[in-house]
Amino acid sequence: MSHQIVRNIERADPKAMQALKEFGTATLHEAMGRSGLMKPYLRPIYDTARVCGTAVTVSCHPGDNLMIHAAIEVCRPGDVLVVTVTSDSTDGMFGELLAVSARAHGVQGLVIEAGVRDTAELTEMQFPVWARAVSAQGTVKSSPGSVNVPVVCAGVIVHPGDGIVGDRDGVVVVPKQQVSDVIRAADARRRREDQTRRRLAQGELGLDIYGLREKLNSLGVRYQD
Amino acid sequence: MSHQIVRNIERADPKAMQALKEFGTATLHEAMGRSGLMKPYLRPIYDTARVCGTAVTVSCHPGDNLMIHAAIEVCRPGDVLVVTVTSDSTDGMFGELLAVSARAHGVQGLVIEAGVRDTAELTEMQFPVWARAVSAQGTVKSSPGSVNVPVVCAGVIVHPGDGIVGDRDGVVVVPKQQVSDVIRAADARRRREDQTRRRLAQGELGLDIYGLREKLNSLGVRYQD
Amino acid sequence: MSHQIVRNIERADPKAMQALKEFGTATLHEAMGRSGLMKPYLRPIYDTARVCGTAVTVSCHPGDNLMIHAAIEVCRPGDVLVVTVTSDSTDGMFGELLAVSARAHGVQGLVIEAGVRDTAELTEMQFPVWARAVSAQGTVKSSPGSVNVPVVCAGVIVHPGDGIVGDRDGVVVVPKQQVSDVIRAADARRRREDQTRRRLAQGELGLDIYGLREKLNSLGVRYQD
Amino acid sequence: MSHQIVRNIERADPKAMQALKEFGTATLHEAMGRSGLMKPYLRPIYDTARVCGTAVTVSCHPGDNLMIHAAIEVCRPGDVLVVTVTSDSTDGMFGELLAVSARAHGVQGLVIEAGVRDTAELTEMQFPVWARAVSAQGTVKSSPGSVNVPVVCAGVIVHPGDGIVGDRDGVVVVPKQQVSDVIRAADARRRREDQTRRRLAQGELGLDIYGLREKLNSLGVRYQD
Amino acid sequence: MSHQIVRNIERADPKAMQALKEFGTATLHEAMGRSGLMKPYLRPIYDTARVCGTAVTVSCHPGDNLMIHAAIEVCRPGDVLVVTVTSDSTDGMFGELLAVSARAHGVQGLVIEAGVRDTAELTEMQFPVWARAVSAQGTVKSSPGSVNVPVVCAGVIVHPGDGIVGDRDGVVVVPKQQVSDVIRAADARRRREDQTRRRLAQGELGLDIYGLREKLNSLGVRYQD
Amino acid sequence: MSHQIVRNIERADPKAMQALKEFGTATLHEAMGRSGLMKPYLRPIYDTARVCGTAVTVSCHPGDNLMIHAAIEVCRPGDVLVVTVTSDSTDGMFGELLAVSARAHGVQGLVIEAGVRDTAELTEMQFPVWARAVSAQGTVKSSPGSVNVPVVCAGVIVHPGDGIVGDRDGVVVVPKQQVSDVIRAADARRRREDQTRRRLAQGELGLDIYGLREKLNSLGVRYQD
Repeated sequence: MSHQIVRNIERADPKAMQALKEFGTATLHEAMGRSGLMKPYLRPIYDTARVCGTAVTVSCHPGDNLMIHAAIEVCRPGDVLVVTVTSDSTDGMFGELLAVSARAHGVQGLVIEAGVRDTAELTEMQFPVWARAVSAQGTVKSSPGSVNVPVVCAGVIVHPGDGIVGDRDGVVVVPKQQVSDVIRAADARRRREDQTRRRLAQGELGLDIYGLREKLNSLGVRYQD
Repeated sequence: MSHQIVRNIERADPKAMQALKEFGTATLHEAMGRSGLMKPYLRPIYDTARVCGTAVTVSCHPGDNLMIHAAIEVCRPGDVLVVTVTSDSTDGMFGELLAVSARAHGVQGLVIEAGVRDTAELTEMQFPVWARAVSAQGTVKSSPGSVNVPVVCAGVIVHPGDGIVGDRDGVVVVPKQQVSDVIRAADARRRREDQTRRRLAQGELGLDIYGLREKLNSLGVRYQD
Repeated sequence: MSHQIVRNIERADPKAMQALKEFGTATLHEAMGRSGLMKPYLRPIYDTARVCGTAVTVSCHPGDNLMIHAAIEVCRPGDVLVVTVTSDSTDGMFGELLAVSARAHGVQGLVIEAGVRDTAELTEMQFPVWARAVSAQGTVKSSPGSVNVPVVCAGVIVHPGDGIVGDRDGVVVVPKQQVSDVIRAADARRRREDQTRRRLAQGELGLDIYGLREKLNSLGVRYQD
Repeated sequence: MSHQIVRNIERADPKAMQALKEFGTATLHEAMGRSGLMKPYLRPIYDTARVCGTAVTVSCHPGDNLMIHAAIEVCRPGDVLVVTVTSDSTDGMFGELLAVSARAHGVQGLVIEAGVRDTAELTEMQFPVWARAVSAQGTVKSSPGSVNVPVVCAGVIVHPGDGIVGDRDGVVVVPKQQVSDVIRAADARRRREDQTRRRLAQGELGLDIYGLREKLNSLGVRYQD
Repeated sequence: MSHQIVRNIERADPKAMQALKEFGTATLHEAMGRSGLMKPYLRPIYDTARVCGTAVTVSCHPGDNLMIHAAIEVCRPGDVLVVTVTSDSTDGMFGELLAVSARAHGVQGLVIEAGVRDTAELTEMQFPVWARAVSAQGTVKSSPGSVNVPVVCAGVIVHPGDGIVGDRDGVVVVPKQQVSDVIRAADARRRREDQTRRRLAQGELGLDIYGLREKLNSLGVRYQD
Repeated sequence: MSHQIVRNIERADPKAMQALKEFGTATLHEAMGRSGLMKPYLRPIYDTARVCGTAVTVSCHPGDNLMIHAAIEVCRPGDVLVVTVTSDSTDGMFGELLAVSARAHGVQGLVIEAGVRDTAELTEMQFPVWARAVSAQGTVKSSPGSVNVPVVCAGVIVHPGDGIVGDRDGVVVVPKQQVSDVIRAADARRRREDQTRRRLAQGELGLDIYGLREKLNSLGVRYQD
């Protein structure tokens, strides 16, 4: 129940993380049995934002970014900051200066269940951010919090070191122990989808490819001319 | 009260639909006496998205896209899918594969009172979508629904075959019987607006063009220096 | 308690307004002691929108844009329209024609606690707008309101003639008497930030630059390896 | 596309309406194949509010209650006012005086996709109201609308004369042609539920009563000790 | 731009405040030309809550109730605490202990644009509160703010000493200089309403009492049998 | 990543759970260092609702209550059902029949991040429920989910067997290993509060009791007469 900063965490395997980069959030979420997706109110600040890295988690008091400063010290190249607040807030807890600092330590991007500011500068830097709001509202540095403890961010449990993938469709958390399994499942799914895509492009119907006609019938759906 | 798929529907006249393409949603909504506009929570997934086509309506259980697959079979070139759910949902019921399938059948775009995913791919394909949310959340194919029955989508009644026009300002439904009348009214409005625009550009005031000074006076609005 | 249109207002000093243009909303909001920022539900209609001008305030009945027409007459080059409604509304009270008219009178842009339409045309014109919603919904011209009285817009008091600055992060109101002071404070802040940025870019930590280690300690935050 | 007030409408059969009073919204919604339920943002202003009557529909401009006054004239004993607005609004369009007037004409209650005021007085009068908001915000009487045309209220199509049932769980619309069928189905459902309730009260499981064990198995859900 | 606590404020006249108690928020809001009403997201924590007193204003950092403690010292019997936060928050900044303290100093109630807790205890104490949320979320006492400066609360400017009236329909601010005028207008309105109520109760129509038939006609609304 | 029903779980100690009943959510949340509180959008369906029991967790597909039926079989006297959905939903997944069934198995109440129906009946039964919405919307029994796995409900991680306390202020989760510690801390807090309450009731100020005057001074807050 006390506040702490955990310096050393076990991170998802770097090679596996490299492989994870190939997949989008929709594919990974499906590959995990439709789990791991953060709520859709987290949106990227620019459309081409994309990130894949290991989570350094941060729990802050709303309107207070003290713990983000503390978190940067324990980040390593390849990490993604995952910032939550103890109650709902849209304040701009992170901006250009913090991005410069984070990047100097190898941080790949930010997922924050609150607000972000300096979005023009962040876009120019191509520093990808997924946030709940864009807001210039400044914050204080007065209240304690924690770094690298398990957090809930936008409805999903994130453990320090978990794989974080963000794209235009949202943010997915891949538990660090499951990265290789998820890649395998995602790869299989992608191959199946490639095949399906070809068939659909030629006009074949999902009804036939997925065998849904019988399903419709058994559910009592009737055709009418 | 039972679920059904209606194969053949009366669609708005193709020639009239061709003429409808020239107008934006604001003009059409005004031309219909300020009716027919869907609620503004439906947003295009990219800024230049534009669509004009005839509605194939789909009513789905939330979190279930079975009926979209069923709908594609009854679509014809020039149609627009209009998808509703029986209760509020942001799940990503539609993505790239369905867009490939829809396009193979001539579908022009999608209006969905729920979520959409693969938005980067849909943008690259230039497949226009108006949705309530962007979300990678996957869906099942388990529950019955209907195709080509009257639905309420984002606050507006849509009958199968109605004209659907979407642009950056939203989505408008033009009842199929009224398409020609609406075009006439829209055309007249556009001409009037062209004239008004010229006068306004030269500094003339709306107060004078629309004769609002007397209105202000009769409402008791007082000027003060 | 009656409705009025005030023709002549005291505006923030034009030279100071010129200097104000150099700063973004985050910097100005901080320079004012973290005040003056409108709520983040106001968003620009295009990402590069930027405005800096003096407020002409407008209070309208929801769904009614009569008073915007009245306001344009009292605008002068360099003004920004700040429009509020007496209860929440997303109707598209402002569109391309009003923008043409406003621009003909030197208006720099619009901040509106309601909806806007013709967003494609406004973007093409590069007429910057911050709004609560994009909606083609048309409005009437039937109910009285006021021009150039103090209003509350998106949570902030705006007096006629105040400085208004908008960018991708939001909208800030700089009280007209404070513009010079705010510029001085913003300038000082910017210089400090330039220095801090250089240090952060070289890997120095905010923890050290801002002296936060002792703070963490005094708050009982513990490090753990 | 023009505004009108329809004086005479076909109402659901009075005897059937009498029988409808016995059922709650959940039962009726299920008896209609899970349709007809308004969105849950409509809430009763007091917990024991209950209504069952025939719809007189009203479409108003937001912030304007002119058409409610017009509607009362065409109401008959047993009617329920169903009021919509052409765009979202929370204004208090209806209060005690209108309730006194409505009651004098036999109106049973109000369903309004906007705000209501004088809620203490309405509760004391036991005049049942389902509204989107409670707000003292006053409205004008300036803009045209329609009475007794088909409307969409809280997501559901309402035709004049349809059966309207409201209770603590929400509001259901029973199309006038279906009232007798719906009563039959609701009655059957209620009898089944009475039986089920007895079994459940004795500890029998829904899993067994509804035969869900095989379903769980076929869906791949595994038990673990 | 600095933080301050103003000890002595001019309050609305006590006798006038006494007379103000007789009126509800709807009547007062109308009597002020439909102004002064806070947004409807402020709700009373119990249905019979009612308050009438003079504002002591408090501006807090979100998640921080330090300034409420400071405010109680400058309260006098008959005051109402009006608490705002510098950005949106639902934290429970006020609970039973603060109510005990406030009551010991004669405070009549609380209007807070944030959360409140101990609502069962506050109800038992009959300490009236209008809040944005009910939440047990605790707060810190770390950040500065101000007491008795003009604030914006739920969309309305409140000056220290203004009249505050809250009931089941919401909260109204009566500027201190206007209290007597507002009472006069409210009284006149109430008398008119009493008369109107009697006529409506006997079945007379608002259409006739307010002379709306011609209005409908001039707006082009047509009757149809 | 597969779905499962865990029959046997470790529950918080029954004696400790008995002691936990004495405390409200605000006290417990504070005693846990301001953690464990679910988001305030969960509200009790009646004001006097109160619950204290051990969590049986349920993860459902939105619009599908199959897994609630499965969960009841593994409940024991003293349990509380904690139901989440894999994406946001307001459907009425739980009603009177399920409450009868749950009660027959000793279930004390329900916490559900979705909708509930039959709220009049549930209130009469005094079956306490905290829900996101009240909605008569019916659900299906078609999609798999899990019982007694860790879930995130309204922003908080809940492990099966954790202590759940709900009252008018919200819902708190007490991790099962911490129940005794939390009770100790809550008891100490309550004693401190009893003392503080007495002092506040006599007019002493929080400023003095909590030693906040120096804090205000060091934060630069100035007094003004």
